[in-house]
Amino acid sequence: MIRIGIVGYGNLGKGVEAAVANSPDMELVAVFTRRDPACVHPATNVPVAKFDDMAAYQGKIDVMVNCGGSATDLPVTTPVIAALFSVVDSFDTHAKIPEHLANVNAAAEQGGNVALISVGWDPGMFSLNRLYMNAILPDGKDYTFWGRGVSQGHSDAIRRIEGVLDARQYTVPVESALASVRAGENPELTTRQKHTRECYVVAAEGADKAKIEEEIKTMPNYFADYDTTVTFITMEEMKRDHSGIPHGGSVIRSGCTGLDHSTKHTIEYSLKLDSNPEFTGSVIAAYARAAYRLKEKGETGCKTVFDVAPVLLMPQERSEIVAKML
Amino acid sequence: MIRIGIVGYGNLGKGVEAAVANSPDMELVAVFTRRDPACVHPATNVPVAKFDDMAAYQGKIDVMVNCGGSATDLPVTTPVIAALFSVVDSFDTHAKIPEHLANVNAAAEQGGNVALISVGWDPGMFSLNRLYMNAILPDGKDYTFWGRGVSQGHSDAIRRIEGVLDARQYTVPVESALASVRAGENPELTTRQKHTRECYVVAAEGADKAKIEEEIKTMPNYFADYDTTVTFITMEEMKRDHSGIPHGGSVIRSGCTGLDHSTKHTIEYSLKLDSNPEFTGSVIAAYARAAYRLKEKGETGCKTVFDVAPVLLMPQERSEIVAKML
Repeated sequence: MIRIGIVGYGNLGKGVEAAVANSPDMELVAVFTRRDPACVHPATNVPVAKFDDMAAYQGKIDVMVNCGGSATDLPVTTPVIAALFSVVDSFDTHAKIPEHLANVNAAAEQGGNVALISVGWDPGMFSLNRLYMNAILPDGKDYTFWGRGVSQGHSDAIRRIEGVLDARQYTVPVESALASVRAGENPELTTRQKHTRECYVVAAEGADKAKIEEEIKTMPNYFADYDTTVTFITMEEMKRDHSGIPHGGSVIRSGCTGLDHSTKHTIEYSLKLDSNPEFTGSVIAAYARAAYRLKEKGETGCKTVFDVAPVLLMPQERSEIVAKML
Repeated sequence: MIRIGIVGYGNLGKGVEAAVANSPDMELVAVFTRRDPACVHPATNVPVAKFDDMAAYQGKIDVMVNCGGSATDLPVTTPVIAALFSVVDSFDTHAKIPEHLANVNAAAEQGGNVALISVGWDPGMFSLNRLYMNAILPDGKDYTFWGRGVSQGHSDAIRRIEGVLDARQYTVPVESALASVRAGENPELTTRQKHTRECYVVAAEGADKAKIEEEIKTMPNYFADYDTTVTFITMEEMKRDHSGIPHGGSVIRSGCTGLDHSTKHTIEYSLKLDSNPEFTGSVIAAYARAAYRLKEKGETGCKTVFDVAPVLLMPQERSEIVAKML
């Protein structure tokens, strides 16, 4: 059995907990938190320990899954953990991945551990598919569409507006753009032409709804570059209709082959997810298995999904996988 | 530059030739044939040599791509080549892959080379996606749909019927079955419910068309289990409308996550290919790069797409790939 620890028990931590429970070769040893452990109640009744007491678990846990946030949490905690344990995180600030990789690599090498960063679906499975598509069709163009799904960051941004009690933002791909890309037309698409943003907002009593709507639609980076719709709903409607965290999307590459580059091909990888954190947790569980096996083979340092041979993700033996799946 | 040799110059050999020409880090050194070399005319004017003279190219070629047929050719020639060179093939007789792997592995180990077998899209990219999907969603069901595309084996089977001058067979997925699978309904589907077969046939003058149609539709293994349509056309129509070799298809897995297995997800990987051999050749070229790199790292033996870390498929440096694609 591969012994797993979870660091941080939010939505992603719960997703990893369920994925580990559903993996025949894994067991969850403990959840670590920087809150008061008495306030954290895992669904599987696993023990809860303090983040700072983690070192006492060396030799009792094979792989830690760091479920903290990318903005301020993972850049600090993944290196700390990597010095003590093999670790997987879902660091998703694309521009800062090389820096994070270097920091985590130094700590993992020092600890003699394997770290896997930026595991999930984007970064993660989408990145992996971009790589495979580019390797096969070097002469081509790729597109990523997200949604329909809940963007947590955009929902949070709306909640910070005065007079907003709750909000949920859905990112929605523009169907005509998707159709054009799928048809291999290789369109040039602006931000506005690729996605729309749907916002569902619960306003406080007496709040100025017109002002809230204006503030959302003109918010730089988040909404100003998109066609955005704002719908005011009641708290009851929010709870009834928008409690899920669905997401998904597609990576599509069209490219040409042949000596005269005249033959066209289209590759598409797409996801429809009823729960973003449960799916991400399931991807991470598979890569925790790979981290464990890489360390068993004597490897050390920080890796990404690009560095992991696919066979390491499966609980079965290689010979069985080759016979059944190839 | 990675120095490539091609063994066998049919449709696949031509596809590999074009893919190598479009790869910045590869050069084609020679084509090897068991025909008279004077009768083989590569599109890129590369030298043609006899299969039996291959040993003289040791040290001049890094990776051989074996483009022979799976039925009788590859089981014999890939081990012969693997004893002399690193080699990639597209062996596609699924049931015999373990046996082929064992034979090729023995030869590659003896020669100190790396062999990669069953590279293409099925087996190949479809297999790889089945593995990733199963690793992420262990509780689920997967489906493979092929087409719309030309099945060479089925076309050949029709051509062997008395009175048939030429034939082209398209495998076509049943749209309603695809829709049900994409909707996550996990249907149980018979062979007949998944694909139909469209046959375009040129009959000899005076041939008994009714008899030909009956022979096709009742042919065991090939057509009897499918809803098959037969359309008689002229040789001119065959050349005008059916000279391409398009193919494609989808691998789809629906699965559940969560402690109570109640959350649903669907993953789909799909291909639309204007030329099956050119796309297969492009996949093989990327894996020839990986075979070269694995041997450079000191590895030996027979591998599959499951064993290859994705980063090895790209011509760029890892740091650049991580920065741009993750």
